[in-house]
Amino acid sequence: MPGNTFGHSFRYTTWGESHGPAIGCVIDGVPPRISLNEADIQIWLDKRKPGQSRFTTQRKEPDTVKIVSGIFEGQTTGTPLGLVIDNKDVRSKDYSDIADKFRPGHADMTYWAKYGIRDYRGGGRSSARETAMRVAAGAVARKVLDHVLGGGIAIRGALVQMGPHGIDRGAWDWTAIEDNPFWCPDAKAAKAWEKYLDGIRKTGSSIGAVIEVVAEGVPPGLGDPVYDKLDADLAKAMMSINAVKSVEIGAGLEAASLSGEENADEMRMDGDKIVFQSNMAGGILGGLSTGQDVVVRFAVKPTSSILSPRQTVDRFGQETEISTKGRHDPCVGIRAVPVGEAMMAIVLADHLLRHRAQCG
Amino acid sequence: MPGNTFGHSFRYTTWGESHGPAIGCVIDGVPPRISLNEADIQIWLDKRKPGQSRFTTQRKEPDTVKIVSGIFEGQTTGTPLGLVIDNKDVRSKDYSDIADKFRPGHADMTYWAKYGIRDYRGGGRSSARETAMRVAAGAVARKVLDHVLGGGIAIRGALVQMGPHGIDRGAWDWTAIEDNPFWCPDAKAAKAWEKYLDGIRKTGSSIGAVIEVVAEGVPPGLGDPVYDKLDADLAKAMMSINAVKSVEIGAGLEAASLSGEENADEMRMDGDKIVFQSNMAGGILGGLSTGQDVVVRFAVKPTSSILSPRQTVDRFGQETEISTKGRHDPCVGIRAVPVGEAMMAIVLADHLLRHRAQCG
Amino acid sequence: MPGNTFGHSFRYTTWGESHGPAIGCVIDGVPPRISLNEADIQIWLDKRKPGQSRFTTQRKEPDTVKIVSGIFEGQTTGTPLGLVIDNKDVRSKDYSDIADKFRPGHADMTYWAKYGIRDYRGGGRSSARETAMRVAAGAVARKVLDHVLGGGIAIRGALVQMGPHGIDRGAWDWTAIEDNPFWCPDAKAAKAWEKYLDGIRKTGSSIGAVIEVVAEGVPPGLGDPVYDKLDADLAKAMMSINAVKSVEIGAGLEAASLSGEENADEMRMDGDKIVFQSNMAGGILGGLSTGQDVVVRFAVKPTSSILSPRQTVDRFGQETEISTKGRHDPCVGIRAVPVGEAMMAIVLADHLLRHRAQCG
Amino acid sequence: MPGNTFGHSFRYTTWGESHGPAIGCVIDGVPPRISLNEADIQIWLDKRKPGQSRFTTQRKEPDTVKIVSGIFEGQTTGTPLGLVIDNKDVRSKDYSDIADKFRPGHADMTYWAKYGIRDYRGGGRSSARETAMRVAAGAVARKVLDHVLGGGIAIRGALVQMGPHGIDRGAWDWTAIEDNPFWCPDAKAAKAWEKYLDGIRKTGSSIGAVIEVVAEGVPPGLGDPVYDKLDADLAKAMMSINAVKSVEIGAGLEAASLSGEENADEMRMDGDKIVFQSNMAGGILGGLSTGQDVVVRFAVKPTSSILSPRQTVDRFGQETEISTKGRHDPCVGIRAVPVGEAMMAIVLADHLLRHRAQCG
Repeated sequence: MPGNTFGHSFRYTTWGESHGPAIGCVIDGVPPRISLNEADIQIWLDKRKPGQSRFTTQRKEPDTVKIVSGIFEGQTTGTPLGLVIDNKDVRSKDYSDIADKFRPGHADMTYWAKYGIRDYRGGGRSSARETAMRVAAGAVARKVLDHVLGGGIAIRGALVQMGPHGIDRGAWDWTAIEDNPFWCPDAKAAKAWEKYLDGIRKTGSSIGAVIEVVAEGVPPGLGDPVYDKLDADLAKAMMSINAVKSVEIGAGLEAASLSGEENADEMRMDGDKIVFQSNMAGGILGGLSTGQDVVVRFAVKPTSSILSPRQTVDRFGQETEISTKGRHDPCVGIRAVPVGEAMMAIVLADHLLRHRAQCG
Repeated sequence: MPGNTFGHSFRYTTWGESHGPAIGCVIDGVPPRISLNEADIQIWLDKRKPGQSRFTTQRKEPDTVKIVSGIFEGQTTGTPLGLVIDNKDVRSKDYSDIADKFRPGHADMTYWAKYGIRDYRGGGRSSARETAMRVAAGAVARKVLDHVLGGGIAIRGALVQMGPHGIDRGAWDWTAIEDNPFWCPDAKAAKAWEKYLDGIRKTGSSIGAVIEVVAEGVPPGLGDPVYDKLDADLAKAMMSINAVKSVEIGAGLEAASLSGEENADEMRMDGDKIVFQSNMAGGILGGLSTGQDVVVRFAVKPTSSILSPRQTVDRFGQETEISTKGRHDPCVGIRAVPVGEAMMAIVLADHLLRHRAQCG
Repeated sequence: MPGNTFGHSFRYTTWGESHGPAIGCVIDGVPPRISLNEADIQIWLDKRKPGQSRFTTQRKEPDTVKIVSGIFEGQTTGTPLGLVIDNKDVRSKDYSDIADKFRPGHADMTYWAKYGIRDYRGGGRSSARETAMRVAAGAVARKVLDHVLGGGIAIRGALVQMGPHGIDRGAWDWTAIEDNPFWCPDAKAAKAWEKYLDGIRKTGSSIGAVIEVVAEGVPPGLGDPVYDKLDADLAKAMMSINAVKSVEIGAGLEAASLSGEENADEMRMDGDKIVFQSNMAGGILGGLSTGQDVVVRFAVKPTSSILSPRQTVDRFGQETEISTKGRHDPCVGIRAVPVGEAMMAIVLADHLLRHRAQCG
Repeated sequence: MPGNTFGHSFRYTTWGESHGPAIGCVIDGVPPRISLNEADIQIWLDKRKPGQSRFTTQRKEPDTVKIVSGIFEGQTTGTPLGLVIDNKDVRSKDYSDIADKFRPGHADMTYWAKYGIRDYRGGGRSSARETAMRVAAGAVARKVLDHVLGGGIAIRGALVQMGPHGIDRGAWDWTAIEDNPFWCPDAKAAKAWEKYLDGIRKTGSSIGAVIEVVAEGVPPGLGDPVYDKLDADLAKAMMSINAVKSVEIGAGLEAASLSGEENADEMRMDGDKIVFQSNMAGGILGGLSTGQDVVVRFAVKPTSSILSPRQTVDRFGQETEISTKGRHDPCVGIRAVPVGEAMMAIVLADHLLRHRAQCG
C-alpha cells in the first residue's frame, strides 16, 4: 500500500518532484455540478508561492495551475480532476555536493535507506514543493464544503509563535494576517518578528514556528470513530506536512495540566442551539465535531538547510561536512500556514462526504 | 468509508460496546507460521486491565481473551485472527441520569448529533473499553515485528507528566516503571504523584497526563511518504486513543523554539553504521525511520467524569446539571500507557509489511 | 493488503474456519436507526443452511446467528455490527487422509504454496462455510437498501442450469423456486433435475450449475466508474464465491455473437420515465445502473470432493491417490443461490451509500 | 469512495476525457531501481493505438507517453510515476446531435442519471480512450513482474471468437497473432474474419468478440482469499473494461456442465515440481495461483455506435432517433486485446507485491 494518496470519499493523489518537469494531482470523488475554474485554485496557490517576501525562498515559481480533466463548461462532472503545475525555476546548478552527502535534518539518509536510489535535485519527492498540490486540492475541498453546506464555513490559519516568541492572544485580529509577511494575527508581534527573523536570515540560520488553523461553521457530527476520528485524521494530515513535529487539538498539550473541572466544556442552550461555555475540546469530542470552532495547532521545526557547516556522512560511509548555500526559508513555518489551511479543508470535505454516505 | 479499521497490510477492525455482551476484533494480514497463543496476548491485556490499583477504575474485568480463528496447532495460518473478550462486570444500574443528558467532555452530544441514537450504557462504543482490543492487536503486532525482524525491537511506554508535574529525565530508569502504579520511569516522581493523585481522587476530581512511547531497534526506511509517513500514521494512531489532545515526535512542540543548528541531528560513522549525535527528530526524517529510537509523546486530558456538578443540556434541549458518581479513573492517562505502546507496535508492524511489498 | 474485507462504504470482514469454534463478521458503515434483530438475519441463513434436502451436505448446522454489537434497543447505532455463529457439527474424525494430501480441485495445494501451513480440517478457511457470513451480511445489506430507498427493491436468485440441463425461460415462475430443493424457477425442469441429481449423488459424483440473480427496483446511477463499475464489483463479488468460474451481466457471453442492432437496448418514454425495449445490458451501462433489472449469472463448478479415486500428490512430493467419503454436496451450485443473492445485496448497498457520498 | 483507482500495493489512478487536453495516470507503489523509460511503455501503447487497420477507428492518436515523475537517471525511485498522453485528434465537430440524446448501449443516460451533467464530447470519461492509460500502467506492471520474479513471465492475449465465429483451438499459434489485424492465433480463422468483418463494417453495423488472456510463469500462491482472490480481482479488472459483458476463468461457463471427475485437475510429480494433468481451473484454486497458466476469457459486446437509426430519448424526456456516423470500431473487441493483457499484468503485479507484504 503506497502512501501518496490522502482521503477516502474526497481522495487525492499527488505526483512530482522538486526539479522534475511538473507536479500534479488527481482528485477523485468531487461532487458534480460545482462551479470551478483555475482562478478558484490559483488564488490559494498565490498565497503559498515562494519569493513573496525576503523571508521566504527566492525560488521564483509562478505556480500556475492547469485543470486538465474533470470539468465541463465550468462545472465539475464527478469524474477525476487532473491538476498540473509546471516547474519553472529549476536551476541547472551543480548538485554534486548533496548528491552523495546526507544533509542533517533532511530526508536524504532515509530515502537512501528505503529506496537505495534518490533524486537529490532539490530534495526530489521529499521537497516541500509537493505542498503546492495540497494547496490546490485544498482549494477544491473548500468549494466542496461550500457547495454541500451552502456556505458558512471559514478556514483560516495564523502563525502564533516564531522561535520562542508567541503572540498576545488578546490582540488576535484576523484582519491583521494579510498585513504582514508572517500571517501573524497580532500586528505588534509581527513587527517584532520582522527584526528577529532578519537577524536569523542574515546569519544563514533558521528557526521553528507554531501554526494555528481554525475552522468556523463546521456542522456537528463529522468524523468516523474510532480510528478515523476527526482529530485523528487532522493529526495525520498536519503531521504529514514537511517539518511538522507536533499536532494539538484545542487545549492540546496544556490539557495534561488541567483538572476535569477546567477541561470539560459546559453546555447551555441559546434558543434551540447548544452553546459551549469554553472550547478546550477544540471543537471535537469523541472524534466528532461539536459545532464549535475546530482548532488545530502544529509546530514546524527550523529549516534544516543552514549556512553553518554540519557534521555528516555520505552514502559511501565516509564522514564529511556540509553547509547549505541554496535558496531557502529562514522560517519554513511561514509558508506552512496556507498548507495547514488546505489540509483542514481536505479533512473536513472528506468527512463531510463520508458522513453523507452513512448518515444521509 | 466507515472508521473502525486501522492499518493496511497489518489491518484490524474492532467491534463492541462498553456494556454489550463482548468486545472483539479481526486482525488480517498476519504472516503465517508465527507461534501465537492466548497467553501471548493476555500478558499485555493484564497490564491494561482496570482495577489494579486505587488509581484506576474499580470495574473488575478479567479481560480474558479467546482466539477464535486464524490459528492452527499453535501457529498463525495467514487467515484472519478473530479475538473476543467477554464483558463481565456490566452493572445493571440505572442509567437514566445519563440516558438523556450530555456529559460535558464526553462524546454524548456528538454521537447524538451524528447518529440520532446512542447506547449510553457506559459510553457505548465511545468508551475506552475499546482500547482493550488495541492492546490485543498490539500484542499480535509485537509478534509480527519479532518474527519478521528476528527480534531486537523493544517498545516501551512511560508516564512522563501528571498534571503539571513532570519527571526528572536524568533519573529515567526503565526498570522503575513496573514498580509504581503509574508506569513512571522516575521513582522519586512516582512517589510524589501518589500523594498528589490521592488528593485528586478523594475530591472526585481528575487530572491530565503525558505519555511517552519509545521504540528501539526499528530498522531505517519504514514509512510511506508523502501521506502515510511514519510520523503521520503515529500521530493518527495516538490521536485516535480516547482523550488524547496532542501528539509530538522527538523534540515535538519544543522544535518551534529551536534554531536549525540545534535541531538537525548530525551524523558520524561507527564502523559501517551511521550514528546520530542527537535525536531531535525522534527517529523519523522525511516520514521514514532513521534507525534511531522512535519517540512519540501524547497528552491525555483529565477524565471528564467528575463529582462536581457541571452545567449541561439534555437531548430535549433543556438546561440541566450532571455529576458522575460511577467507577472512573482519576488520571485516565495511566491506563493509556499500554495502549500507546500497542498503537506504536501496530503502526510499525503495518509499515514493516508495507515496506516488504514495495522494497522486498 | 489482506483480503478478508469486502465493500467500502458498506464494508464487512469475515473470520473463521470450517472446524474452528465459530465463524463471524464485522459490518461497518451501516446507517443508524435501522430496525434490526437476529430474526431479520436468521431468515436468510435458514435458506442457505446445509442438510435441508438429500441434495446438500448432511452436516447439521443450526447456523444460529448472534448480534454481539452495534444494536441498541432494536436499532442499529451506526457502530460496527458484530455477528457470530457457533460451529456445532464439527466431527472429530480422523483427518489424516487429507492432512498431507492435496485434493484435486480444492485449495489444499495453493494454501500450502502460499502460507506453508494449512488448517486441513474441513478445508479450514477455504471452506464454503464462510459463505454463511456472506448471507448474514447480505441480510443486513437488504435492510440498508430498504431503509435508504424506502422499499421497492427485490433481490432474487434462481438455478437456471444443472449440468448441461437448462430451464425453459418461457416457463420462469419466481413462486416456483420455493417449491423445489433447487431454487429452480421452472417446475418441470426441477422435476427432471431431481432424478438427474439422484443419479449423480448415488455414484458419488458431482455436477456444476448456473445461477442467475436479479435485482428489481435498483435506482439508476449506482456504480463508480471507471474501476468500481457496478458490473465490475458484481463480477468480483460473484467470482469470490467458492467454486465460481464465470460471471455474466445481461446478455453476457452471448453478447459476443450479437450485432450492434441486436445488442443496444432502445429507449422510449412511459410518462416521464425512460423505458428500455430490451435488457441486453443487464441493467448496467458504462458501469452504472440504468433502472432496469440488474441481471447477473455465474457458473459454479462441480464439487471437487468425489468418491472416485483421483491421482494427486502430497506435501512431501509423493504421488498418491485420494477419494472423498465425507459429507458433501453433489451440486454445490444449489447452495450458492442464497449466497449470490447476498452478494448482490451487498454490492448494491455499498454503491448506494457511496453514491450518497458523492452525489448527495 | 470514488472509483478511478485500481490495485492496492501496485495502485494506479487515471484521469482524463476523450476530448480533453490530455489523459494521464499516477502509479504508486512501484518498487525502486527498476530500469524504465518511455520506450518501455510506448511499445505497448503502439499495439493498442487506433487507426492501424481499416478495422479500428480512424481517429489518429500518436499516443505518445511522457513520464513526468518517479524516474531518476533511468530508474524508478519508488515515488509515484506520473504518465501523460496529450490528446491530438480531437475533432472540433458539432456534437449537438449527441449533446442531448442518449445513445442506446452507451453510458449517456446513466452518466446523466448519476451526475446530472455530462461531457458528451466523444463520450467524455466513459470513452474507451481511458484504456490507453490501462495499457501504460500494464507496461509498468510487466516491468515490476520481471524485476521481482527475475523474468520468466509471459502475458499474451488473443481474439478467440468474432461474432459467432470461434477459432480452431488445435490450430493455436501464438506467433500468428502479430500477422493479422485481429490478434487471432488461428491464421485460417483470421482470414475468414477479415471478409466477415468487412461486410459488417461496410453496412455500418458492428459485432461482439471474445478475448482470451494467458499468463505463463506465474508462481503459485498469488491471491488474497477470501474476497481478493486472484480470480475475483481478474474478474473485476476485465469487467471494468469498456463493453465487457462476461468473464471466465479456465473452463469458465463450461464448468457448469462438467462432472467432478472431468473438472478437478489431477496432479503428478515431475522431479520435485507438481504438474497438473489438465487446467480446467485456469491456474487458480481457492483464489490462489497454482503455478499453471492463468487463463481468463471475456466477451465484448458489439460497438453501440452504429449507422442504423435507433429509437431513443433525450434528456428533456422527448422520444427521438439517433444514428452514429463518427469514427468507430466495427468490432471493438479487437482493441480490447492489449487492454486485457494490461489488466492481467496489473492484477498479477499487485498480488505479487501484496504477497511479499504478508508472506515475505
